[in-house]
Amino acid sequence: MKYKDSGVNIEKAKRAKTAMLEHVRKTWTPQVLSGPGAFGGMFSLAGYRNPVLVSSVDGVGTKLIVARMAGRYDTVGQDLVNHCVNDILVQGARPLFFLDYIASGSLDPAVVTSIVEGLSIACREHGCALIGGETAEMPDLYQGEDFDLAGCIVGVVERDEIVDGSAVAPGDRVIGLPSNGLHTNGYSLARKIVFDKLGLRAGDLVEELGCSVADALLKVHVPYLAAFTKINAVGKVKAMAHITGGGIADNFSRVLPRTCDARIFKGTWPVPKIFGFLGTKGEVDEAEMYQVFNMGLGMTLVVSPADEERILSRLGKELGICRVGEIVAGQGGVTLV
Amino acid sequence: MKYKDSGVNIEKAKRAKTAMLEHVRKTWTPQVLSGPGAFGGMFSLAGYRNPVLVSSVDGVGTKLIVARMAGRYDTVGQDLVNHCVNDILVQGARPLFFLDYIASGSLDPAVVTSIVEGLSIACREHGCALIGGETAEMPDLYQGEDFDLAGCIVGVVERDEIVDGSAVAPGDRVIGLPSNGLHTNGYSLARKIVFDKLGLRAGDLVEELGCSVADALLKVHVPYLAAFTKINAVGKVKAMAHITGGGIADNFSRVLPRTCDARIFKGTWPVPKIFGFLGTKGEVDEAEMYQVFNMGLGMTLVVSPADEERILSRLGKELGICRVGEIVAGQGGVTLV
Repeated sequence: MKYKDSGVNIEKAKRAKTAMLEHVRKTWTPQVLSGPGAFGGMFSLAGYRNPVLVSSVDGVGTKLIVARMAGRYDTVGQDLVNHCVNDILVQGARPLFFLDYIASGSLDPAVVTSIVEGLSIACREHGCALIGGETAEMPDLYQGEDFDLAGCIVGVVERDEIVDGSAVAPGDRVIGLPSNGLHTNGYSLARKIVFDKLGLRAGDLVEELGCSVADALLKVHVPYLAAFTKINAVGKVKAMAHITGGGIADNFSRVLPRTCDARIFKGTWPVPKIFGFLGTKGEVDEAEMYQVFNMGLGMTLVVSPADEERILSRLGKELGICRVGEIVAGQGGVTLV
Repeated sequence: MKYKDSGVNIEKAKRAKTAMLEHVRKTWTPQVLSGPGAFGGMFSLAGYRNPVLVSSVDGVGTKLIVARMAGRYDTVGQDLVNHCVNDILVQGARPLFFLDYIASGSLDPAVVTSIVEGLSIACREHGCALIGGETAEMPDLYQGEDFDLAGCIVGVVERDEIVDGSAVAPGDRVIGLPSNGLHTNGYSLARKIVFDKLGLRAGDLVEELGCSVADALLKVHVPYLAAFTKINAVGKVKAMAHITGGGIADNFSRVLPRTCDARIFKGTWPVPKIFGFLGTKGEVDEAEMYQVFNMGLGMTLVVSPADEERILSRLGKELGICRVGEIVAGQGGVTLV
């Protein structure tokens, strides 16, 4: 018996690795000390005063299934990196390096290369080195063309620059940065509505949205590192939340002190058409919509009233910032009114 | 329509999170600055002279399928952490923190808690903080009770203490640390032989092995951090390889300089019975066996002849160290003779 007989093809995996390495190398910053084939990716962290590493692991959920239906594999890698960049940004960290995990039943080198190209594009956009990865071929665990994709990011913030919500006080304001669609959450419900209930296919044009199903559902998750950097240079960001699974309320309450509530005013920011489409066609309650989807807000930020004025006047138009709410005395809750 | 209708149960996920947190907290070292619910895990890296971060991502492959067949979920988490600990140890790094990714079609809180308990046990054994994780519920991607498990480790080594193989020279000796079985590689072939060809079930007793199939195949991947620490205190470890997929030759050649070959003498270390069993019952070529499995060597280390004597006399018996080969002039290759 040969290893190949069990469905694992080492030669094919080697070819895939060579092809993806081209994209991986492009992300290597001078701090990367290891080459291809190292057991561990090595990253020099010299030069910080009091470094705190901030890390996060995530997947892209069943947005993967939409990608596979559309045969478009170059965007999910960007989704994954951007999602992770936003998650550590919440604490004020800038990305240092990223590691990916791709698992499938039978490895398709073209698909893997396309995914890694997407990872590479988003990593370069954020000065983040793609320093390691695992491509696992697991027959019997993944069926047909099924695959999974996850990744881990490590970033750094100086200890005295951590954004932790401790300075948030009643009277502060909440501003929002726009999302461009579902980002990476709520895809199990969206797929159920679009593919099962409406019977649409990935390539079908949707009149209401002015684009195909695939175009609407595969929009790349917006990264907010550049926007935050600009905003934080104009005014002090006291707290920040990345609006992912659980929606505005669940995520924003994670970063508020136990002495404050946030009141978010619905209708103060533009809601992308895809949400109205899903809510109407799927007959989903409004409360459920706000629990599952970001509803157009990718990131919420808390700033003082004076900073809000400065930020809005200097950057409001450029970054599409909206005034979406206020901080009041409370117990760490979020109300949507 | 409700999110629940799409197969994602947020309430169940919350319960699973609460249950796993008990195990996660036990791993938190004083350097962990974040609490539960943080977007990113925060880890203070103060106090190093010239820190180099060493990181790796991995899964446990289809050893997961054996765990599921045996209904035993507390060992695969240990396998994963130990595998990752060994991977960064190769460059001399000690673990700082770990993040896990668990994906399934329908989350079983008891299974997830059991996996995380295993992660927690192995993390504590290595002073490694379990600082983040993602538990993804992806109906339509994972079938039935299928799930996947991957993890990312970040460790640190002072720049002047990196183990990189550069000092390896002809005349050096190769010593080996024993594995206790398959560790985390070759499971697709092993399953094919044991379950498909021989028709055994997980609970069946195997006379030749003196234990059940599950006991033989689910032995926990041996971690080598403690052994390395002792060895490196007695003699200088010049290079080190973790023997995983690809076997002794492929992995050891990754850490040799292009001016040296390694000659490994078969028969100089004990080969666990499981390998003989798989080779004979599966009618697998010897060359193929050495390519797919570790064959009893979990780690190979290069030391000078004088250090070899010292290490063997002081630690040989305690750690089960074997003299397994020598370094000769060459091109970075490994020959098994």
